[in-house]
Amino acid sequence: MTSTPSTTTGTLADPDTPFAVVDAHKALRNIDRLAARADHLGVALRPHVKTAKSLDVAALMHGGAPYPVTVSTLAEAEAFADGGYTDITYAVGIARHKLPRVIALLRRGVTLRVLLDSTEQAAFVAEASRREGISIPTQIEIDCDGHRGGLKTDAPALVDIGRTLHDAGCLDGVLTHAGESYFAYSAEEQRLAAKNERDTAVAAAENLRAAGLSVTTVSVGSTPTAHAAEDLTGVTELRAGNYVFFDLVMAGLGVCQVDDLALSVVVTVIGHRPEYGWIVTDGGWMAMSRDRGTAAQPQDQGYGLVTDLAGHLIPGLVMSAASQEHGTITARDGATLPDLPVGTRLRVLPNHACATAAQHRGYHVIDSGRTATDAPAVQAVWQRISGW
Amino acid sequence: MTSTPSTTTGTLADPDTPFAVVDAHKALRNIDRLAARADHLGVALRPHVKTAKSLDVAALMHGGAPYPVTVSTLAEAEAFADGGYTDITYAVGIARHKLPRVIALLRRGVTLRVLLDSTEQAAFVAEASRREGISIPTQIEIDCDGHRGGLKTDAPALVDIGRTLHDAGCLDGVLTHAGESYFAYSAEEQRLAAKNERDTAVAAAENLRAAGLSVTTVSVGSTPTAHAAEDLTGVTELRAGNYVFFDLVMAGLGVCQVDDLALSVVVTVIGHRPEYGWIVTDGGWMAMSRDRGTAAQPQDQGYGLVTDLAGHLIPGLVMSAASQEHGTITARDGATLPDLPVGTRLRVLPNHACATAAQHRGYHVIDSGRTATDAPAVQAVWQRISGW
Repeated sequence: MTSTPSTTTGTLADPDTPFAVVDAHKALRNIDRLAARADHLGVALRPHVKTAKSLDVAALMHGGAPYPVTVSTLAEAEAFADGGYTDITYAVGIARHKLPRVIALLRRGVTLRVLLDSTEQAAFVAEASRREGISIPTQIEIDCDGHRGGLKTDAPALVDIGRTLHDAGCLDGVLTHAGESYFAYSAEEQRLAAKNERDTAVAAAENLRAAGLSVTTVSVGSTPTAHAAEDLTGVTELRAGNYVFFDLVMAGLGVCQVDDLALSVVVTVIGHRPEYGWIVTDGGWMAMSRDRGTAAQPQDQGYGLVTDLAGHLIPGLVMSAASQEHGTITARDGATLPDLPVGTRLRVLPNHACATAAQHRGYHVIDSGRTATDAPAVQAVWQRISGW
Repeated sequence: MTSTPSTTTGTLADPDTPFAVVDAHKALRNIDRLAARADHLGVALRPHVKTAKSLDVAALMHGGAPYPVTVSTLAEAEAFADGGYTDITYAVGIARHKLPRVIALLRRGVTLRVLLDSTEQAAFVAEASRREGISIPTQIEIDCDGHRGGLKTDAPALVDIGRTLHDAGCLDGVLTHAGESYFAYSAEEQRLAAKNERDTAVAAAENLRAAGLSVTTVSVGSTPTAHAAEDLTGVTELRAGNYVFFDLVMAGLGVCQVDDLALSVVVTVIGHRPEYGWIVTDGGWMAMSRDRGTAAQPQDQGYGLVTDLAGHLIPGLVMSAASQEHGTITARDGATLPDLPVGTRLRVLPNHACATAAQHRGYHVIDSGRTATDAPAVQAVWQRISGW
């Protein structure tokens, strides 16, 4: 989880390809943008670290001091605890066999919140809490849009689960995620998704409170709704993760511009097939992931858009096909295929930052605010957390 | 790259989920099947280790003794060289900046063959070979079906490249890959793809020989064509990689049966959404990959088919949706959703073994030929090679 000294890392023209690049300048700009929105909305931000999975990327916020985070795996929770983070929400429904690792983190002084949406889960969390003599702070997952897990606000089980947790000293609050906002293609749809997400979470909290149960946390968030919310009254915290890097799916939704994308993959041209109009690179799906999130959008961006090594978009180029270690770049919309000789390095902007980042063990870090060269200087190499 | 003693690893009911499982019994059966075919065809087998990326999986062949392999990254080449393998083909077009690692392996006594399909690449390989005073054994990539890289057999550049390599003492032979065979849905189409792959490679070799150039290696292969070839006269070696694990794409092509799949992912049920007919698990695309190879096949298998922990297929169940750490299992074809309580462990069979395996750092190994329990014993934990 430590960064490598920058003195040995050269420029983006040096490392073997393919490799992942984080533009810290753009990441910081994205971070500042959402921080300002959260301030304006008067709500605390609990970033989801599942996209970057990096203590170094996380340290771009709050001057490197720990802050509340959301995680998608206990491996992330443990790594962030090792890094001094003490306020962590594990936002995937808890399984009984994971409780020993949860309790171990709690005993280390980490406030690790777990999530659930069933009476079975509430029963084993309450039982473990009593047996171990330790409160396991627990949030009830609420379904606001039929996207994934959670209870409807009017589900009879909601209050039963709340009471089971309350009686064991484990009830912390409610959490919801507007997963369907990733399919909201207008600013108005995104505002409505944000309003619905907030209204649903607050209604669930009120239903629990009406039953005499104390609700502390009312947590909402997704990258699109976090940028669209206009009123979060009754909400105590906002979660978002993808926004630090952004990606072509988010650009396709209008949540960001392509120029905001902070993650890319450097590849090398290894061949040409002029008879097919192909430029072949050494970056296939192993480097980009198989994610084709933009395939469902009005503008399909293939496996990604292409920039030069300095980060300037090359108009009309798209990575249109991938095998394990080969990428195929083509021209579209009548664009002319530029002359990019064997050995040319390019950067590819991904569909889905979470999936592309996961294909790499770390990031080569550049700062596009400081450098203005053809081959940006590498400031550091940051490691990712992997596994579960 | 070392295996963990099996005495500490328990059963598939023990490790935190999700995790990848290799059934060594099925892998060995798949290995034996293709080895017998290669023997029958009178051709050497050079397995592609890009699917498993594991010295332990590779050691299932030839009693653990090193043998000729194909790799997709120099990281694989270096790891296999460390494991005693001395005959390695790096089957991705070479980039100039990768030559120092190639030469370092050659100086260690590894016969590392590189691949190329352009005059530019041939020029820098020949130049490096002369400058370093070392022969870089090189194969010319031939395009047999318009799938990816390579030269047509009648391309004027073929002989020019061959001569450049020959004059530098680097010409080893030709290599082709019938990538389009992954879309050959009948045994007859697969036989024709295999015949075309063989005929194209041999024709390219003959064109070089007719120009007075010596061709040693004539290499062909893909998992579908390797299982369909009837005559490989003139071919010196057969490559295939996926076949050790197989996957639902291969089963969809009829190259194997679903029962042959040696790779799966163990997940835990973490919730239910009866109103939608969903079983929610802790295995999302991070555990399965985003690969949806069967989406292009007559029978779309979603993110995978579902078995119990012992490996018995649960009829009608499919993993139909995935987010990062959530999987959604549904019933199809009028099947009834079985009662699978929170905490139930299931196994998911993947679309594409190469992509799913790449999401994991290693494999928990079972032997379905030896165990017949609900929770198979874990024989070992094997590590994967990652990165480039």
